[in-house]
Amino acid sequence: MPADVGFHVIATDGRARRGRLRLAHGEIETPVFMPVGTRAAVKGLTHDQVTALDPDIILANTYHLHLRPGDELIGRAGGLHAFMGWERPILTDSGGYQVFSLTGQRTIREEGAAFRSHLDGSAHLLTPESVVDIQARLGSDVAMIFDECAPWPADRGVVEAAMERTLRWARRGRDRFLAVQAGEAPNVWRATPGQAQFGIIQGGTHLDLRDRSVAGTVAMDFEAYAIGGLSVGEPVDLMYEVVGHTAAQLPEDRPRYLMGTGMPDDLVECVARGIDMFDCVLPTRNARNGQLLTRHGLISIKNARYAEDLSPPDPECECPTCRRHSRAYLRHLYTVGEMTAATLNTVHNLHFYLDTMRAIRKAIEFGTFEQFRQEFHRTFSRRQVT
Amino acid sequence: MPADVGFHVIATDGRARRGRLRLAHGEIETPVFMPVGTRAAVKGLTHDQVTALDPDIILANTYHLHLRPGDELIGRAGGLHAFMGWERPILTDSGGYQVFSLTGQRTIREEGAAFRSHLDGSAHLLTPESVVDIQARLGSDVAMIFDECAPWPADRGVVEAAMERTLRWARRGRDRFLAVQAGEAPNVWRATPGQAQFGIIQGGTHLDLRDRSVAGTVAMDFEAYAIGGLSVGEPVDLMYEVVGHTAAQLPEDRPRYLMGTGMPDDLVECVARGIDMFDCVLPTRNARNGQLLTRHGLISIKNARYAEDLSPPDPECECPTCRRHSRAYLRHLYTVGEMTAATLNTVHNLHFYLDTMRAIRKAIEFGTFEQFRQEFHRTFSRRQVT
Repeated sequence: MPADVGFHVIATDGRARRGRLRLAHGEIETPVFMPVGTRAAVKGLTHDQVTALDPDIILANTYHLHLRPGDELIGRAGGLHAFMGWERPILTDSGGYQVFSLTGQRTIREEGAAFRSHLDGSAHLLTPESVVDIQARLGSDVAMIFDECAPWPADRGVVEAAMERTLRWARRGRDRFLAVQAGEAPNVWRATPGQAQFGIIQGGTHLDLRDRSVAGTVAMDFEAYAIGGLSVGEPVDLMYEVVGHTAAQLPEDRPRYLMGTGMPDDLVECVARGIDMFDCVLPTRNARNGQLLTRHGLISIKNARYAEDLSPPDPECECPTCRRHSRAYLRHLYTVGEMTAATLNTVHNLHFYLDTMRAIRKAIEFGTFEQFRQEFHRTFSRRQVT
Repeated sequence: MPADVGFHVIATDGRARRGRLRLAHGEIETPVFMPVGTRAAVKGLTHDQVTALDPDIILANTYHLHLRPGDELIGRAGGLHAFMGWERPILTDSGGYQVFSLTGQRTIREEGAAFRSHLDGSAHLLTPESVVDIQARLGSDVAMIFDECAPWPADRGVVEAAMERTLRWARRGRDRFLAVQAGEAPNVWRATPGQAQFGIIQGGTHLDLRDRSVAGTVAMDFEAYAIGGLSVGEPVDLMYEVVGHTAAQLPEDRPRYLMGTGMPDDLVECVARGIDMFDCVLPTRNARNGQLLTRHGLISIKNARYAEDLSPPDPECECPTCRRHSRAYLRHLYTVGEMTAATLNTVHNLHFYLDTMRAIRKAIEFGTFEQFRQEFHRTFSRRQVT
């Protein structure tokens, strides 16, 4: 592990863990939710608005930034932190998930993934090594390995092959990463010394494939381990089962990151199964579609029932949106198409997610997580608030 | 004049005036620029962002709010201030300009303007009286009379007829306004006691028509006088001439408001001709189109020349956008279509406009306005910054 990186479990409660992860740009308190800033900006928010929400870490997207404005340009600007003016930790995904989503426009072979840009059709090749180099130029605190994510549902053979390839790619990616960090990759500018690299466990919903993926990946000694290939359409109970099984196989002294999940109750359930890190576009994307997440459930703000509702979206919420504005005003802004609607909804949703994580961390510290979890489920429903 | 409304000229410098206008929701320092919040929101900004820019007053649009969410709904919510959570003064235009822009979808007759909504084709009629009632429900600090704005160019006969009709409509509007303020309009809820009403001078670019419009309108004793029907396509020098001529005819003890203007140098030139109040969509609209206004001129942020330009848009500017971000980052956000680009550009442009007005006010106080004006023109160019 690089000297700048360290993880300590401060407290446990059942399988839930309260931890602290030291990265090159600062410490993050876990369990943590990472707001998604795909193209070097959290959609709808300015830097000041993100800062006011106080996330310890945000996520940015390797595939999108590689295409525009380009990792070489960002590298020349001093890396992603300097480019976007963000001083806290950043995690970059590997672009693998985006490339595999380009169905019909990409070819996966052992060397890597060849694809055509969704923007201009230009040809690109991402390999386990090039993805390391791109992320070194971006200078994120955490770089993810390039993995192959099988679709759901898929034949066991397909899932197994993707898992095995992910293991081979992880080895290549780890070797390249160690060379770059050691300064043995002469053409790669490292914007952030002390970058960490996370391995990714694949294997779909097959527990034995997950076990093999864990064994092979942990043997490579990454700074942390992510569980990939979930929240791709499988039933939520199956997702919980795979998370619980897989997290339990992972080393106690390394963070566990569940990629791309989820609804607020998913966060609670997966913390209960030993997950430390989360990211998801759900709070930001739903905000832009007029959906507010509250401790009671979903509010679809465009609904006519809110036209004259002068109460805040969530009367108990202390976010700037709920303290200032009514459902009626937010509905008006959404209905007439003011972009400010997306901003105000995003502020609320991210505040709710980050606040839920704060409450989770406190409950684990106090040894009251199980109570918190039951209380959360009593209040929260995935159905719309009525 | 209502007891809550008062205007005092604190200092003059040439024909430029430094004043203070007391309205129902507070005082405003003039010369003033009023950011436009058409549909009860300044496009691209949250309430907190507008507040941080510190405008004394903002503008909202009667036509748009009448259609959505409806002035009755806003009235029931306690008026526009309560509905949008804004505590400082608001000026509402009369909707006249929007209706007359609905070419082919509206019929103007003596009673008023019949039109079809641009949203759903539903039939509406705005009259000089109904526009007063709508603005009473909205509860703005300043209500504008319903006027007829002639196009440019137009035959003198057309301009004269529109001016004459505006006078007749002004009389009807003033009578209705006085009745509403006196509580003699039983079905009209007044969200803001102490509302002021401004008359509008028409007459196109014909100075003698402007004179007749001034004489007729001033005889009705409005709280202030606006100059309408300019910045509709006429050459800028002609606009300056009409402004200079008309402002000089207006009473010294009432504010003068030039509607819908303009570029930063227009503000300076029209202050020099005795204008106290301005509004314009230019800083907000241009921001959304990637155009930044600076003391040196225009920056079209999408230009490829800025791709690797790590300097702020305006190195001397103290707005949050210029203090935090580079041209390269703003260009990236604009190029990839992040809405945050519009927000950051809007913050900058409005800051520049409001800052220019602060500098103008200070120069008039110090008796150095003519120096300021010459210096401004030496630095500012309407051409693009290179």
